[in-house]
Amino acid sequence: MSSIKLTSLNPRFSDVQYAVRGELAIKAEKYVVQLKEHPNDHGLPFDKVVFTNIGNPQQRGLDQEPITFPRQVAALTEWPALAEKVKGLGVFPDDVVERARELEKEIGSIGAYSQSQGASFIRKNVAKFIEERDGYPASADNIFLTGGASAGVSLMISMLISSPKSGLLIPIPQYPLYTASLTQHGGLAIPYYLDESSAWSTSPQSVRAALEKARNEGIEPKALVVINPGNPTGSVLTKEVILELIDLAEKNNLVILADEVYQANIHHPTAQFTSFKKLVREANSPVPLVSFHSISKGVTGECGRRGGYFECTNFPEDVLALIYKMISVGLCPPLGGQIGVDCMVRPPKPGSPSYPLWKKETDATHKALAERTKLIAERLNALPGVSCVDSPGALYLFPRIYFTKKAVEKAKEAGKTPDTFYALALLDETGICVVPGDGFGQVEGQNHYRLTCLCAGVEEYVGKLEKFHRGFMAKYAD
Amino acid sequence: MSSIKLTSLNPRFSDVQYAVRGELAIKAEKYVVQLKEHPNDHGLPFDKVVFTNIGNPQQRGLDQEPITFPRQVAALTEWPALAEKVKGLGVFPDDVVERARELEKEIGSIGAYSQSQGASFIRKNVAKFIEERDGYPASADNIFLTGGASAGVSLMISMLISSPKSGLLIPIPQYPLYTASLTQHGGLAIPYYLDESSAWSTSPQSVRAALEKARNEGIEPKALVVINPGNPTGSVLTKEVILELIDLAEKNNLVILADEVYQANIHHPTAQFTSFKKLVREANSPVPLVSFHSISKGVTGECGRRGGYFECTNFPEDVLALIYKMISVGLCPPLGGQIGVDCMVRPPKPGSPSYPLWKKETDATHKALAERTKLIAERLNALPGVSCVDSPGALYLFPRIYFTKKAVEKAKEAGKTPDTFYALALLDETGICVVPGDGFGQVEGQNHYRLTCLCAGVEEYVGKLEKFHRGFMAKYAD
Ligand SMILES: Cc1ncc(COP(=O)(O)O)c(C=O)c1O
Ligand SMILES: Cc1ncc(COP(=O)(O)O)c(C=O)c1O
Repeated sequence: MSSIKLTSLNPRFSDVQYAVRGELAIKAEKYVVQLKEHPNDHGLPFDKVVFTNIGNPQQRGLDQEPITFPRQVAALTEWPALAEKVKGLGVFPDDVVERARELEKEIGSIGAYSQSQGASFIRKNVAKFIEERDGYPASADNIFLTGGASAGVSLMISMLISSPKSGLLIPIPQYPLYTASLTQHGGLAIPYYLDESSAWSTSPQSVRAALEKARNEGIEPKALVVINPGNPTGSVLTKEVILELIDLAEKNNLVILADEVYQANIHHPTAQFTSFKKLVREANSPVPLVSFHSISKGVTGECGRRGGYFECTNFPEDVLALIYKMISVGLCPPLGGQIGVDCMVRPPKPGSPSYPLWKKETDATHKALAERTKLIAERLNALPGVSCVDSPGALYLFPRIYFTKKAVEKAKEAGKTPDTFYALALLDETGICVVPGDGFGQVEGQNHYRLTCLCAGVEEYVGKLEKFHRGFMAKYAD
Repeated sequence: MSSIKLTSLNPRFSDVQYAVRGELAIKAEKYVVQLKEHPNDHGLPFDKVVFTNIGNPQQRGLDQEPITFPRQVAALTEWPALAEKVKGLGVFPDDVVERARELEKEIGSIGAYSQSQGASFIRKNVAKFIEERDGYPASADNIFLTGGASAGVSLMISMLISSPKSGLLIPIPQYPLYTASLTQHGGLAIPYYLDESSAWSTSPQSVRAALEKARNEGIEPKALVVINPGNPTGSVLTKEVILELIDLAEKNNLVILADEVYQANIHHPTAQFTSFKKLVREANSPVPLVSFHSISKGVTGECGRRGGYFECTNFPEDVLALIYKMISVGLCPPLGGQIGVDCMVRPPKPGSPSYPLWKKETDATHKALAERTKLIAERLNALPGVSCVDSPGALYLFPRIYFTKKAVEKAKEAGKTPDTFYALALLDETGICVVPGDGFGQVEGQNHYRLTCLCAGVEEYVGKLEKFHRGFMAKYAD
């Protein structure tokens, strides 16, 4: 008998919930193995699993092609001698060769630990990118490169929790990294609800109400988390709302954690991304702000490299030094991710040899995402018992389902929430993997699920969703 | 005034100490900038900074060349189309092309999140590597790929801490990741001292004594940390001691955390690495064991990729599931690191096209490390007031310095420990950056520093060390 037991381990770990890779995803992985091991007699009613549970564009089965430019740069930084070996053969565009050479000159080998905070050369490039985006100064000293946005979010949350009474305001529905990290590090979630009836908008009034309620319960609010564009909602905040939230955070001594990893994913011509940083500066606010970005999203979708950064605004020196110390224990973020960040903030410029291909590839993906999101939302809205906000941003839709009493009862019998029951049936019947709404949080008694709009072959995909849904509704008709 | 203040943050963060990238390293980085910005009038008594504070072989100034094979494989997985473009030109050896193709077939795009635990194909290869090393079965299900060993160590420590009274037995001197993670996650270090007088050996008796003392103080010991080969000591555990430690852990219900990242770094012909896993199996012990490995060390030194793994032995299913859930919150380890792990556990085989170069490169680095370690140890031992155990393993030496009363007094006046005072003077005078012994822990009143044996140009380097030391001793003679 092993002497390591669940009951002797960190009790907070057992409480952590992370549905994006939870029950559904684990079952889906098992189906993948089953299909692979028994290609001809797998006994399943589908031939492939479609992972629309996670924003992972290059995943097998979705197969969004990587953008060529960052991959060429990465190949040359991996094996710098290559440039010489293929010189004159036209294998690499000149700007790629130059970029790789510059990175090597500035950073050295990608096999060495960089500065803990990330290579200063790349941080300077990030600062320039932010300056151009916002029109306000940015400094490499305030920028920390990370292994994906996740690593930064988790660190910031653990830093902000100073006692078991520390709370963070979290939008509901949310990307569950937030509640998972809070639980892991012993803090409390203070939920504020987004308004589905007005396209998942954020109402500062509801944030204020949540804040007051938390204070009355003895919780000490430390920070306001905002995901813009939203996950799972895809909503994009207006300038007015952001300014109100900044004011609210300032008045209530909150740090703002602005998750802006989807800033490049805007599908509606009327929606526009505005960064919190820009408006903090515009409002001349002293509010401490951490904004997160990532190479996993946008149209690059380089999830596997694990690259991202966060920028601290209005942070005093000693707190920056504290962050530096903490990240230095983990040595440094992966250099492949850092190179990816450099390519994200310095894409090929018009006139450079790589520009035309880069433009073509990124335009095509933006277009495909916008079209697919619109199409899936329309088709879902046409189904009985479904309503779906057509997301203006990010990579997801979060349809609401109105279950029959019978379906709710059957779910209960199976020991599942209705949306988990539905999602499991969807997976079992079609191989499509989505995440039930309760993984993100929703108004008590409501039901949703989240799917990504990343799938190629959208017609076939939606067709399967529709067929399954109609069948499910018929089977459990009251 | 910013509303974020040190005093309002997680109080444990302020207590964390991590000297490897502490005061000395920060000052050294400033000198690098100074040298770069004022190449001709920097006003410093040296022209370059030598970072021997951290085991970072490919770092600029040390410039250990990367091993070619993993870099070629990585280049092709970054841009798979490249193989076709240079086909027939002899740019890549056939086995590299095959390996990259196999990895792509099995894993898909390296731009996609893999399974949270790491790609199963690579985990299977790790299992085979362990089986061949130990002669006992290993399973991919028990293996978790990580972003460097650090990530795994930190996670395991935070999982084992179930209350503020939880303690981990830590060797002193130790690699400060252990105490830093313990402090960060709210656990207690139970120090056991290694014996410098017998080449930094580990005495199970001293572990037992530490355990007893901790229990008497109301601490609940949860795990025994062992670093083998040692950092900073370079000592290599004998089979007998390992078996005793396994027995001790078993009897005391401890989990063993075996940090074996230096398993390939053995310099003495008489020393031999034996894994804890092998002996746990040999002893048929039910003791729960986590063993850590990394691509950062060995002779590959691919620190920047952030790759590694840990293997859990004698872990029940539910605990493995808990670990899986926790790592899934961070999505996955970097694919570049995972590819690096694959190359580490599946190096070119004799007879394959890449073998001769791989063999030449790895042999050369092993030889250089062994020679340099021996030479530096000899020269240090010849200095007045220095004694140094000649490390049989790892990448470091940890000389002891016997300071004069005057030096100790001067250090006190400067508000520094004697070894920090010494290391700062060394940096200021020569540009050599080492880490003072107090960063690793040492017997009260003793003084050491750690240096790596990675520097190219060892003669020049040792010459500077010697000159500085003699000068320092003369300056502060009693
Ligand atoms: C809102 C949000 N933040 C952060 C992340 C983390 O992404 P990564 O760690 O890959 O950068 C995700 C991933 O899906 C996300 O949706
Ligand atoms: C003993 C020991 N363990 C773990 C590590 C962590 O290395 P990495 O996270 O790069 O794998 C190091 C790095 O120096 C080390 O010396």
